[in-house]
Amino acid sequence: MKIALIGLGSVGRGVAEMVAKKDLGITITAVADSTSVCMDADGIDIHTLLARKKKSGRCGDEGVSVTELLKKADYDALVEVSPTNALTGEPSIGYIKTALNRKKHVVTSNKGPICLAGKELRALAQKKGVALRYEATVAGAIPVMHLLEHGLAGNEILAIYGILNGTCNYILTRMADEGLTYDQALLEARELGYAEADPTYDVQGIDAAIKLVILANTIWGNGATLDDVERTGIDLLTADALRLAEEDGCTIRLIAEAIPRKHILRVSPRIIPKNHPLVVEGTLNALTLETDMAKEITLIGRGAGSVETASAIIGDLLYIRNHYDKRA
Amino acid sequence: MKIALIGLGSVGRGVAEMVAKKDLGITITAVADSTSVCMDADGIDIHTLLARKKKSGRCGDEGVSVTELLKKADYDALVEVSPTNALTGEPSIGYIKTALNRKKHVVTSNKGPICLAGKELRALAQKKGVALRYEATVAGAIPVMHLLEHGLAGNEILAIYGILNGTCNYILTRMADEGLTYDQALLEARELGYAEADPTYDVQGIDAAIKLVILANTIWGNGATLDDVERTGIDLLTADALRLAEEDGCTIRLIAEAIPRKHILRVSPRIIPKNHPLVVEGTLNALTLETDMAKEITLIGRGAGSVETASAIIGDLLYIRNHYDKRA
Repeated sequence: MKIALIGLGSVGRGVAEMVAKKDLGITITAVADSTSVCMDADGIDIHTLLARKKKSGRCGDEGVSVTELLKKADYDALVEVSPTNALTGEPSIGYIKTALNRKKHVVTSNKGPICLAGKELRALAQKKGVALRYEATVAGAIPVMHLLEHGLAGNEILAIYGILNGTCNYILTRMADEGLTYDQALLEARELGYAEADPTYDVQGIDAAIKLVILANTIWGNGATLDDVERTGIDLLTADALRLAEEDGCTIRLIAEAIPRKHILRVSPRIIPKNHPLVVEGTLNALTLETDMAKEITLIGRGAGSVETASAIIGDLLYIRNHYDKRA
Repeated sequence: MKIALIGLGSVGRGVAEMVAKKDLGITITAVADSTSVCMDADGIDIHTLLARKKKSGRCGDEGVSVTELLKKADYDALVEVSPTNALTGEPSIGYIKTALNRKKHVVTSNKGPICLAGKELRALAQKKGVALRYEATVAGAIPVMHLLEHGLAGNEILAIYGILNGTCNYILTRMADEGLTYDQALLEARELGYAEADPTYDVQGIDAAIKLVILANTIWGNGATLDDVERTGIDLLTADALRLAEEDGCTIRLIAEAIPRKHILRVSPRIIPKNHPLVVEGTLNALTLETDMAKEITLIGRGAGSVETASAIIGDLLYIRNHYDKRA
């Protein structure tokens, strides 16, 4: 299986390293970072590629655009892991369309395109008879999409509840465990690299809301958008609120929830019993699926990380290889 | 998809009821309980069948053996959910072989045959080009087999740790929460129908060990047997031991664990921190998979129940229908 890898940040590097390390039957034939591209139909030597990137900051040469690369290169699947653009989804939406139009499968960890144009992209993939998979967009290493598709096939999904943002969960865990204020916990999260310089996207629940939209649309196909999500962040939470919850054997977590029967699509801090399966510590993610037959199934795992996210992408690639006919 | 359903206890009834209730494209063409059989190539009316079973204790007529039924009836997949025999696996092993030899797929919740003859049965299924699936044998409604097969494909599984017996988990939860003695908690579990009159199979860890063997052999294919499992039950645990664990912010759970690199295959009461994802309450099951890329993934859900187990069986049936060519 030949792949074109667009994006060589943390996730792209994780994918490249795992493809080089493991005997997965995957060959990388095209790579693009933000300023250069590299192409070899016989397979790019990944160690050389990563060494060049590390030394020069570039994986290859200028002069060929990513779109040209995607039109010319020899690959079976596009792995789109470039930085997400939550406002327009571009240029990734364009990259994905270019590949789908060439009847190439697409695997992505890129939330913007799937949140903003998921319906259109899924329809295009179906029309072209190829796969569009995006396990890595929601809850990192946790294979929730695979579970919905297979293990829980036959179940009606009644509701989902999840902790989909590790930064917020880290901050809330520290506030609860150590009695820190929000500002103290945020500072700590920044020092550890869990929070960005501008934490708005995480702490105001935007990141969790995007993931909720992706998940809800995948399950119910109801065309929800980010604007449909009722959203409250954690930035106004006080240490007192957490202390009060603790006194009742509870704690506070930022919960993303979708409950169609109640018309709920919401991200907000919720008080939950400390022994509830969803209450996970630190940067972990967790997700409960409420179903008609299996009842509640909870999944816990790493929501981010280079190799962890690569796990989800490789799971999608291997699924495509094993379940779709080989194309020329 | 036509199925032959062998066994009409709690799980068999759950499967029949869900097939009748949901539009899954599944038709039941043959049914056997412990004393009778029923067959109709055009599809058995499930409501009539279950009413007859309730009234007379029998689903159909005598005179035809289950083996004859499996040789004569028209079906694509055998659903084997008869009572498990942990000592010999019979007569279920024979039923499964009969179906596989006729090139029929097999789905089972029956632990005995898979624990005792899994390798042989998997080889026979492969030789005949049909599926043998047994998601329901381990951790009830939790789709762990599907996850190993798909979502985590590409990962090396380094270790598994799990709570695979709801009866023991209920007893330990009650001992910890209410300070009950083992005998008090067992009595309560019996009154609630969570423990059998003879609880040996559960409380001595045999049930958990059987599931561990099934899981370990599925992952690593190393031909482990029940005798290879180092096993300690919960029947000698004192309320004092639990109290001491609680004082350290920990609790005790019956953990089934397989760690090949340490040559560990063990079921035993273990002290674990109360905030560990594996610490679930009541009759829940939980399972942590330690992998090289995704790191730890924990799954929590119902380990038993009529409809919950039917969920796993139906997941297997739909997987077969969608991934195997239709046979005549």
